[in-house]
Amino acid sequence: MDKILRINMGEEGCPAVVINSIGDYSGLGGRAMTSAIVSKEVPPLCHPLGANNKLIIAPGLLSGSLAAMSGRISVGCKSPLTGGIKESNAGGQPSQVLARLGYAAVVLEGKPKDDTLYKIVINKDGVKIIADNSLRMLGNYDLIDKIKKEFGDKICCISIGPAGEMKLSAASIAFTDMELRPTRHAGRGGTGAVMGAKGVKVIVLDDTGMQNRSPKDPEKFREANKNFVQALKNNPVTGKGLPALGTNALINVMNESGGLPTNNFKMGKFEGVSKISGETQVETERARGGLVTHGCHRGCVIRCSGIFNDKDGNYLTKQPEYETVWAHGANCGIDDLDAIAMLDRLDDDFGLDTIEMGAAIAVAMDAGIAEFGDAQAAIYLVKEVGKGTPLGRILGNGAAITGKVFGVERVPVVKGQSMPAYDPRAIQGMGVTYATSPMGADHTAGHARITNLLGLGIKLDYQKPESQIELSRILQIATAALDSTGMCLFINYAILSKPENFQFYVDLINGFTGREMTKEDIIDLGKSVLKNEREFNAKAGFCANNDRLPEFFKNEPLPPNNVTFKINDEELDQIFN
Amino acid sequence: MDKILRINMGEEGCPAVVINSIGDYSGLGGRAMTSAIVSKEVPPLCHPLGANNKLIIAPGLLSGSLAAMSGRISVGCKSPLTGGIKESNAGGQPSQVLARLGYAAVVLEGKPKDDTLYKIVINKDGVKIIADNSLRMLGNYDLIDKIKKEFGDKICCISIGPAGEMKLSAASIAFTDMELRPTRHAGRGGTGAVMGAKGVKVIVLDDTGMQNRSPKDPEKFREANKNFVQALKNNPVTGKGLPALGTNALINVMNESGGLPTNNFKMGKFEGVSKISGETQVETERARGGLVTHGCHRGCVIRCSGIFNDKDGNYLTKQPEYETVWAHGANCGIDDLDAIAMLDRLDDDFGLDTIEMGAAIAVAMDAGIAEFGDAQAAIYLVKEVGKGTPLGRILGNGAAITGKVFGVERVPVVKGQSMPAYDPRAIQGMGVTYATSPMGADHTAGHARITNLLGLGIKLDYQKPESQIELSRILQIATAALDSTGMCLFINYAILSKPENFQFYVDLINGFTGREMTKEDIIDLGKSVLKNEREFNAKAGFCANNDRLPEFFKNEPLPPNNVTFKINDEELDQIFN
Repeated sequence: MDKILRINMGEEGCPAVVINSIGDYSGLGGRAMTSAIVSKEVPPLCHPLGANNKLIIAPGLLSGSLAAMSGRISVGCKSPLTGGIKESNAGGQPSQVLARLGYAAVVLEGKPKDDTLYKIVINKDGVKIIADNSLRMLGNYDLIDKIKKEFGDKICCISIGPAGEMKLSAASIAFTDMELRPTRHAGRGGTGAVMGAKGVKVIVLDDTGMQNRSPKDPEKFREANKNFVQALKNNPVTGKGLPALGTNALINVMNESGGLPTNNFKMGKFEGVSKISGETQVETERARGGLVTHGCHRGCVIRCSGIFNDKDGNYLTKQPEYETVWAHGANCGIDDLDAIAMLDRLDDDFGLDTIEMGAAIAVAMDAGIAEFGDAQAAIYLVKEVGKGTPLGRILGNGAAITGKVFGVERVPVVKGQSMPAYDPRAIQGMGVTYATSPMGADHTAGHARITNLLGLGIKLDYQKPESQIELSRILQIATAALDSTGMCLFINYAILSKPENFQFYVDLINGFTGREMTKEDIIDLGKSVLKNEREFNAKAGFCANNDRLPEFFKNEPLPPNNVTFKINDEELDQIFN
Repeated sequence: MDKILRINMGEEGCPAVVINSIGDYSGLGGRAMTSAIVSKEVPPLCHPLGANNKLIIAPGLLSGSLAAMSGRISVGCKSPLTGGIKESNAGGQPSQVLARLGYAAVVLEGKPKDDTLYKIVINKDGVKIIADNSLRMLGNYDLIDKIKKEFGDKICCISIGPAGEMKLSAASIAFTDMELRPTRHAGRGGTGAVMGAKGVKVIVLDDTGMQNRSPKDPEKFREANKNFVQALKNNPVTGKGLPALGTNALINVMNESGGLPTNNFKMGKFEGVSKISGETQVETERARGGLVTHGCHRGCVIRCSGIFNDKDGNYLTKQPEYETVWAHGANCGIDDLDAIAMLDRLDDDFGLDTIEMGAAIAVAMDAGIAEFGDAQAAIYLVKEVGKGTPLGRILGNGAAITGKVFGVERVPVVKGQSMPAYDPRAIQGMGVTYATSPMGADHTAGHARITNLLGLGIKLDYQKPESQIELSRILQIATAALDSTGMCLFINYAILSKPENFQFYVDLINGFTGREMTKEDIIDLGKSVLKNEREFNAKAGFCANNDRLPEFFKNEPLPPNNVTFKINDEELDQIFN
């Protein structure tokens, strides 16, 4: 993984491939890599869909090795949704495969001269770029079927659906899973629109003939990996809760705490929650011959995913995640799990972020475009996006644009990006992350639902402002580092719960890289990633006042607990000082 | 003019009227008044359509007096279009009438509890607020007809069309002219959406029984006014060019210089210009029994407006201004003057900013929604806005949103507001104003097409960057002061051309107010207005990088002269230091 593949899609005549040695970016992976390249090479004031933006796809530092959980892949660019820097990461197979092919990053550059659509094929023999307008406006599922017919099934794919081709700001990039289905998405921030603006429909990866990446210290690596896996299995969340119920285990918990945003963030509890809970979801999946425990990539030992079949027992989509069930469910007042699964399928097929789409539809419902609770209307609306009608394009550009176009005041976004499934009035620390993350509102950037950080006994009341700034800061730094390793975020439950578990994680990195990183080095890595990102955003025109929640979170108490967001601006501004 | 009328539209039960003495805002008028109230009373991070925004309508300092040219009225708020402070001013009768009624400002506050629509009637006896849902979605023309039937024709009106009711960011506020037609608009920045969000459809003003406002020093005032009027008559632009050809005299000039933005800013010359020139326009008007010289308010001595009749000789609209002819004409490749006049009429009727609409349609044309040059398509698109279809709502939210929704890179906006009819590559000083004005791209904020400032012999090459910063700075300061007096911007041609003319203007102010302001005091007034505005914007989240033109102005040479915008960022940032 010592090469960077650069493809200039704007070169006169045809796209030009350059393979460089990793050079200055040596030692970086995942988010550290994407954010370093964006901050060094992308002019902060460039148009996100223009020649000067770059799309960077980077496996994690440990991807392609036998380290458990190391299959996450990062996508970076200047975001068409936020106007700031973006890193969005996903599971699926491509991270491992790209890493084994030796690429630390694929960088798409330039602006195509016309609207020809390309597929890029990367294997042990090199890189081919092939014009293929027959792929135009294919959904991800049909696209992958077509690609499979051409290249067989020993491949994996990185692709966009119609949303990316239409350059919609909610467009995702799909990464195929173990079954070669386009179910794993770098959803947030409109990375799919940037890929669409580069004229690339699909990147086909084939690592036939390549080996796993070898650790520098095989014994240390093996031992650390064993301990790390055991720690994951011993932790109640990663060892039991997530495999059993998936991420949607959270919906009952969030509802109980009064922090489940319902009907476009009007309430914190949803009366239909039992119909869409994790428990109901796994029962349904089991009854229809689906799967309730399934990894999103090889090497995952948590396996929080699953397979959701339709009523006839045929595959419909992967098990919808908590944030999806919330976005298309509670947030739109919809309590129909089949409709939610269909929406998940449509989003994956069109290449759309489920969070942004659910938030946009809820805002549209607030504008009177449809009734809260109307599942068929929600399906109709997502299909409009796939068709690219004016209404669909509005929604497909996300909640902020939808609110603006329909004159809605209640729009739960920060930096133009929709808030996910955790009301910041009920979980104040999440509000700090939403407000201050360079990514815009993003739960994964510092998932402040944790009570006993590193066994230090930090016990927080989620609804109170005390210590939330500190919590969010630590988590944002830890996450920025984690997102650079290719590790799944969920290992946090285990590695942040006990100091010895954190050490297994550090040992795993050191065993692989041969470095002698300490906990402090990892913190420094996280800090440097955030520093790059915040500096880019400042140059792109963001200032302290962009680190704010919409005013209604301060002014409107959230029923039933009637809490407001209580952390003041001055405190928010101190988070990274 | 010592009272401020505040109407809280959000009061429980019914809107509440409070009439205060002018207090701290004493001595302010027009833009100085609106920007002072916004910066002091509106929370910079509030939602523009929410309870905490305020809509302020303020006559100029000299409005309601016999001072020539003093009938401009300012509207201020936090802008739904830019997210920053907004002052947009207009001609028409209401400024004089409101001033004679004694109101230095009308402030609409709060957020209505429901969607009831109100009319507000202000006369010598006081203020009445009347619910009237029969006015819903009426165009401005039908609305005024209905209001005339109810209140007679000794009134004047301030109103919104369907666009304002739909809270579209390109919605204007209409002010009736001398013929009681809704042709004079505070167009820029979506002030109509804020009026719509306050639930106010129309404000009916009747100054029956009121007197002109008296000058403190009648003799000095009379003398200064006489000299001032003479100076306007002697100046070739205000005395000859504008009365003869209207503002559209400029289109040939701009085309000749290669600075007429054509087909969404792709070229600086439009081949169909002769069909839409000022000369052709006045010929057409004359031939059809229209008017070629006509004031937009009583007391105007320049009279740059006119009446545009249709082919059958029936009134269609007021003489479209240069910026309108450009926006709906050259910028969309349209060379059909009747179509442009129809678009002007539709914009006035729906309550839309002609500049923003022309820019939005041109961006939509770039996205392939219609062909450049297709006049009927443009008419269809504006009608979609009036109907509030999804496509119409996209366009009605302006060029930035249109570009975002359709994934267009070439979007000529600053701070979300469309650039008017002067390509900043061809007139570099205008680019400085566009970039740095707190209003977003706005030609009136510092109209840098002037060569001999105050007779000081400053001769600039428009296409070269030298001294453009200084020019824009002086003009922005002078304009901020001017916009506070109620004076028409066009007096600048006369008062900035000769020091003695400027003195007549100062004497006129002093004769009226009884103060002893110097030229320096006026500069200080302008500076303080800009300071208020820039401070508000900083608190609303704007920083130096919001003071930038879109990157294509630097990267793409403008044919035929192949110039780019050459003023660098560091220079822009020094403009107000």
